[in-house]
This record gives sequence, structure tokens and C-alpha cells, in this order.
Amino acid sequence: MPECQTLVHAGVLVTQDAERRILAPGALAIADGLILDAGPAAELAARWQPRERLDLGNMLVLPGLVNAHSHAAMTFLRGLADDMPLMEWLTGRIFPVEARLTADIVRTGSLLGFAEMLRTGTTACMDMYLFEGAVLEAAEEAGLRCTGGEAVFGFPSAACPDAGAALAATRGLAERYAGHERIAVAVNCHSVYTTTPEIIAACRDLALELDLPFHMHLAETRDETARCLEEHGRRPVDYCRRLGVLEARCTFAHVVDVDEAELDVLAASGAAVAHNPSSNMKLASGAAPVAAMLRRGLAVALGTDGPASNNQCNLFQEMGRAALMHKLVSGDPASVPAEAVLDMATLGGAAALRAPHLGALAPGMAADLIALDLAEPNLQPMYAPVSHLVYAATGHEVRLTMVGGEVLYRDGRFSRFDYDALRREVRALRDFVLG
Amino acid sequence: MPECQTLVHAGVLVTQDAERRILAPGALAIADGLILDAGPAAELAARWQPRERLDLGNMLVLPGLVNAHSHAAMTFLRGLADDMPLMEWLTGRIFPVEARLTADIVRTGSLLGFAEMLRTGTTACMDMYLFEGAVLEAAEEAGLRCTGGEAVFGFPSAACPDAGAALAATRGLAERYAGHERIAVAVNCHSVYTTTPEIIAACRDLALELDLPFHMHLAETRDETARCLEEHGRRPVDYCRRLGVLEARCTFAHVVDVDEAELDVLAASGAAVAHNPSSNMKLASGAAPVAAMLRRGLAVALGTDGPASNNQCNLFQEMGRAALMHKLVSGDPASVPAEAVLDMATLGGAAALRAPHLGALAPGMAADLIALDLAEPNLQPMYAPVSHLVYAATGHEVRLTMVGGEVLYRDGRFSRFDYDALRREVRALRDFVLG
Repeated sequence: MPECQTLVHAGVLVTQDAERRILAPGALAIADGLILDAGPAAELAARWQPRERLDLGNMLVLPGLVNAHSHAAMTFLRGLADDMPLMEWLTGRIFPVEARLTADIVRTGSLLGFAEMLRTGTTACMDMYLFEGAVLEAAEEAGLRCTGGEAVFGFPSAACPDAGAALAATRGLAERYAGHERIAVAVNCHSVYTTTPEIIAACRDLALELDLPFHMHLAETRDETARCLEEHGRRPVDYCRRLGVLEARCTFAHVVDVDEAELDVLAASGAAVAHNPSSNMKLASGAAPVAAMLRRGLAVALGTDGPASNNQCNLFQEMGRAALMHKLVSGDPASVPAEAVLDMATLGGAAALRAPHLGALAPGMAADLIALDLAEPNLQPMYAPVSHLVYAATGHEVRLTMVGGEVLYRDGRFSRFDYDALRREVRALRDFVLG
Repeated sequence: MPECQTLVHAGVLVTQDAERRILAPGALAIADGLILDAGPAAELAARWQPRERLDLGNMLVLPGLVNAHSHAAMTFLRGLADDMPLMEWLTGRIFPVEARLTADIVRTGSLLGFAEMLRTGTTACMDMYLFEGAVLEAAEEAGLRCTGGEAVFGFPSAACPDAGAALAATRGLAERYAGHERIAVAVNCHSVYTTTPEIIAACRDLALELDLPFHMHLAETRDETARCLEEHGRRPVDYCRRLGVLEARCTFAHVVDVDEAELDVLAASGAAVAHNPSSNMKLASGAAPVAAMLRRGLAVALGTDGPASNNQCNLFQEMGRAALMHKLVSGDPASVPAEAVLDMATLGGAAALRAPHLGALAPGMAADLIALDLAEPNLQPMYAPVSHLVYAATGHEVRLTMVGGEVLYRDGRFSRFDYDALRREVRALRDFVLG
């Protein structure tokens, strides 16, 4: 009988494999951070000789969720200012604090964001911020997968004097993390309204040269479209297309203010979309045409955006809100069903991160999984596990989070870092913001 | 120094009193199920001699939330069918199961719903269902406050052959629970589309005779309006007004398809509205004009509706979704701010239940409170406690739930009933539905 490192027994196993198998009970054989086998519990017990067993008997096990658009560090601004018009909020409350930012604050804020992600079932994220080197260090410390890069702007940030410096920082991160198992690098071109055509072209060139994902906020609001038309004579998607951006492997966040023709262009380009339900609702940006994206076969993922405009880093909340908001705006209660939403949070996320080994529990895929406690009252009774994941779970039912076969969170404890020490450091975030 | 039974020490105390005081740290003096005093911790420690102390040091304490529209028993249908058009869902999936319903199933389903409410910080609810006597028995067992009455229809239900029997059952419940500390009775007239003018008038008469709240689904969808116009020549609000319904103390659930003039009529009548964000989004019913209701001073409360159309009994989820959905539909990020939402879930709920001793922690009010664990990563750092309650909390941060000075839930344990036994009974719900 062949050996494996760990045999995981799950009361219910939602595989998200090609057949979308759900096994009750199910099991997973794991070695070297990868899934060797997935199937009915009895079959795997007869097939594998494990060195250790992980019994998750009354748990629902599924692939770790993938957060395709985050600014994890922004936990330091969580709840500082809400219920305000976007520009007043940004220029009056957010930018003045960000102008004083330091790498230390970014590292602490990011670790807090990653703690929340691990605690609520997220095992990988695509992140964009200033001092992104500090973000990736925090990700290494927490142990979750993170694809990040220094945010590129057309003006000085607290971290970089100009776009050239931000691109050089990104190149440095790409060298530092080349071949890393969990940390990857993307070119984070902030947006069309914070850059110039020359900067966007330079970002595209770096993405193509180093074969990095190109990550950008795109078509988030009607204001962005109006400004792009005024300054560049084109709508954002067409402006980016003309600049050759779509030649890169693109992940665009938001994609709210787009028409059918623009969706066709994006679908043909192979771009992925990171949909951010909470942020788009809270900032009144509008509803991305997700049903129309899915009809075209566009890869749609889910993101939390930053905790200053959400105010959570919890992908279960995004799943529920995605399923609900599109029914509201379309008037169609069958729009964006639960299965499509779970696909976005898993396989769609893998597509957005350009990480095809994520998003499903099947042989050869990463052993990134989470386990939810089925004894919680809101998960009973159960007829359809996927319905419960999208409509009934809050994210706080997660009892175990594993990345690459390593348990990073279990029953309130983080394995890689001292959470109590982090909580003490979080006070420094508050002092920094208010000081 | 005067004695009190319990002195509660809270790291942060959100009182919801007339001044909306937030005290950090704060304290509450409790005796005989009531708040004697609320204020800064140091002041109360110097003022009261308690028989016992409850130290909730790193917790955020606030009034127990009030769920103004529930069908708690419907946990037995949770996740059975989603993502379907309303009428197909109701007639194809829900009604066939409800036709076979028994009081035992209703009792078990309700206890599960109440367990979820207590676990997520709800201390009182207004409930409508069949076999409501069994619902109120479950509420007595769980210990939370419940205002209920047999649902009145113009056709036979599994519980009652006709509306007269349902009204007789309501009268019986009113006699049984007269003067009860936690259980109260309402006349639950189901809706305009499931009754006749005669039945609505009889419901109104009973409500006026016994001075009971009149609870009804009203103006939930455009279909309801169209049908009411066709059958009765009037829109639902006007139809009810003509039948004298507004003379009673009314709580109307949903109130989605209403115009400005109808809102004026409702505001002038003193009616309360129970707004159900998740259900209205999931069934694509539309967005109730909550901002316009609040401008008129209408009492607006929050409800979860039934777990077949939500699929949770968690008022924290309703708070977050209420704050977000109205920003989305209005395009105004300042619409329905966090403070207004917390008011709905507390003081608005008290208005809907006609229970003025609920919804705030102030002298003379009920000692109904909940405590959230501030060590959870999603509640850090904290600048504005109300922002965290509405935008950052999931409901599963609740560690303690108290009703009338009695701890009903603490750290995973329910004090009044055997939760493991309930979980075993829940399997019978599933067998019943699938059998």
C-alpha cells in the first residue's frame, strides 16, 4: 500500500474538481504539500498508508478560498471613516494618513489582514499596496500565498518617489521571490486615473519581460470613465487595449462601468476580473455585470478590496453578498447562483492569480484547504453543502486552515506567528493613525 | 452603598440610550432583570455593591438585537432550494413540504432558529408561522423574547382548517401568555394576497379588542401590488387603510413596493416597518425605500425573514447588508449610515414589537445584552464601535447573550436547553423534509 504524509477524513468534502464532486464522508491523501488523491473516505482508507491522520469528522472541507483583490495592510484604517462620498473620503481621510505611512505600519497592518483571512478561510490573495515588500514579508510570516507588487502611481507615494522607483521595487521583489513556493509577484499598475500612458506602457513592458501578471483597478466608477474620456478620448478598456495592456496576463479589479462590447474585448483577451461586492456597494460604485461576464466565459474571481472600504477581509461575506446583490439589481432570483459564486471564490481566484494549482482538491493540486464546523446552528440541517457555503456561512465557522499541507490556523490559534503579540502591535497602528 | 444583583464591566459599552453614549470602559448595574444604572465603569464601581460581578473586559457590550420579522421554524427548509423564481420556489418546493407539517417539526425547527439567534446576538423576535403555539413553546425553552401568533390565511393550513380557527388559536395564545415576562402575542394576518377583506377585518377586530400588535407582510413585491389592484381595485397600503387596519398598532414586513404618498400614510398611522435585506435581495423583491422611511420618522426595524429565503437568522448579517444595499441602489455612499442601521436593529425593533423596554441599555430597560469578543482579528483596530458592529462584525463574535439578566448563551453553551440533543433532533427535520 503506498504511503502518504497525511490522510484527511472529512464529514463532507466539497472538491471543486472538474466533476464538482461532493463526498460525504470524503478523504484526501496529502504529501509534499500536494493532493495525491481525493475520493470517498472508505476508498482512500483502503488505498493509502498515512504517516499521520487528520480527522475532521463533523467538518465540511473545501479548497481554501482565493481573495483576488486585497489591500491587506489597510486594516490600520478599518472603520476610521464610513458613509462618506468617495472623493471626500479618499482625499479628506485616507490619503492624509497614507502620506505618513511607513513599512513597519504596512507590515503590521498586513499581518492583521492575513490573520483575518486565515481565520475566515482564505489561503491565497492578490494584493496591491505601498511598501509591498513589507506586505510580502508579512505573508511569509503568516504562511498564506500572496501575489503582490509595489503599487505604481504617476505621483510620489510614501514608499516611492515616482513610477520608475515603484517598477524597480517590483523588479527587485520578482528577483527576491523567484521560485518561492507561496509568494509571487505581479505588476501592480494602480489605475488609469493615477498614471500616464507612458507609465502604463512601462508596466506592460515589465509584465511581458518578466512574465508577471498585470493587476490594475479598471472601470470602477462612471467618474473614472468620464475622466478617461476627457483626458484620453477613450473609455478605460479601450484606452488600455490601445496601450497594449491586454497582451499581458491581466487581472482587472472592479470592472463595473463596462458595456457589452468591452466585455467581449476582455473575454477575447483572456483577462480575469476580480469582483468586489462589498466595496462596490459601500462606495456606491455600482454593480459589475457579473452574469454577463460569466455568460462570456470570462474568469471572474472575488475580492475583498481593502478593509477601509469593506470593512472585512472575509471572502465568505463576499460570496453571500455577490449571490444577493446581482439578484437585486437584475430582478432575477436565479441570477448568479450559489455554484457560480463558489466557483468565483475558488477556481476564479486561481485564474486571477494565474495559479492553476489552486482552487480545487484533486490530484496534483496544492493541499490548500479549510474546514468548517458543521455543529454551528446556522449550518443545520444540510441539504446542499454549496448553498450553506454561500448563503448560510459567515466565515467564522472555519476551524482549520491549511496551506501546502501545513496547518496555519486551528481553533483560534495561528501556528506561524504570535497572535497576542500582533494584537499588542495593532495598538501602534491606532496611535499612528490618530497621532 | 446600594446593592445590585450583577455589576457588568465592559471594555466598550454601546448603550443606545437617548444620548447614544459609548463608554470605554463602561458598566451596568442589574437587578430583577432590569438595568438599574449604566455609565463609566469607575463611577458604577464606586456607586454599587453587587452580589456578583460579570467581567467582560475585552468585550464590546450592546443591547440585544431585535429581529422584527422571522419564521424561525423554517430552519427545516434551510438551503433546500435556492436560486429559483419566487412562485416556482414557493409552490414547487416550499408549500408541498409545509402541507405535511406537524407541531413537533415546528417546535424543533424553531428551537434551532432560536439557538442561532441567541448565538448571533438576537434577544427578541417577532415571529409568524403555522403551529405558532409550538414556536412559542420553543421560545420559552430557549429563553429569548418572542412575540408570535398563528398565521391567518384564507385557505386551510396544516395547522388550521380556516382563518377562524387561526384567530381562535391566537386568542388562546393571548390568554395563555397574558402577563408573561418574555412571550407576547400578535395577530399575524399573513398578507393581502392570502386573505379576504373579511378575514383582514376580523384580524383587525381581534387586534383592537385584545390590544395586540397587528403583524402582516405588506407590499413585498410588484406582483402583490398588481394582484391587489386587479382583485380589490387598490394598492396594498390603501386597501389596508380602507379596511381600518391602520387603527391597530401595525408592524408591516417588507414594504418594498410603495410610493411617497403611501409612506406618508404609514408614517401618519404610527405603523412600524420590518425591513428584510437578505430576503428581499435573494428573492429579487427589490429594495425597500428605507432612506425615505427614515426621513419621515417611520419606525424601521430589521428582520431576517425565514431561513428558507435568507438563509440565516443572524441580525448582524442584516445590519451589514442593509447598510450596503441602500448605498448601491441609491448611488449615494452616505445613504443609511451605520448609526441608523444599529438603531433599526435595536430601538427600531423595540418599536416594531411594541416593547419600549427593549433596544437600549439605560435605567428601567430590560437587561437584554450581548458581548462581542474584541480579540477577533476583524474587530481590530477600533476607531468607531458602531462602524465595527455594522460593517466588520459577522455575528459569530458574540460570546455572551443575556435576556432579562439571565445568561442564555456563553462561549458555545446554551444554558436552558441541551444543544447536542437538539442537534440529534435536527436529523429528524431532514428526514421529514426528504421523506
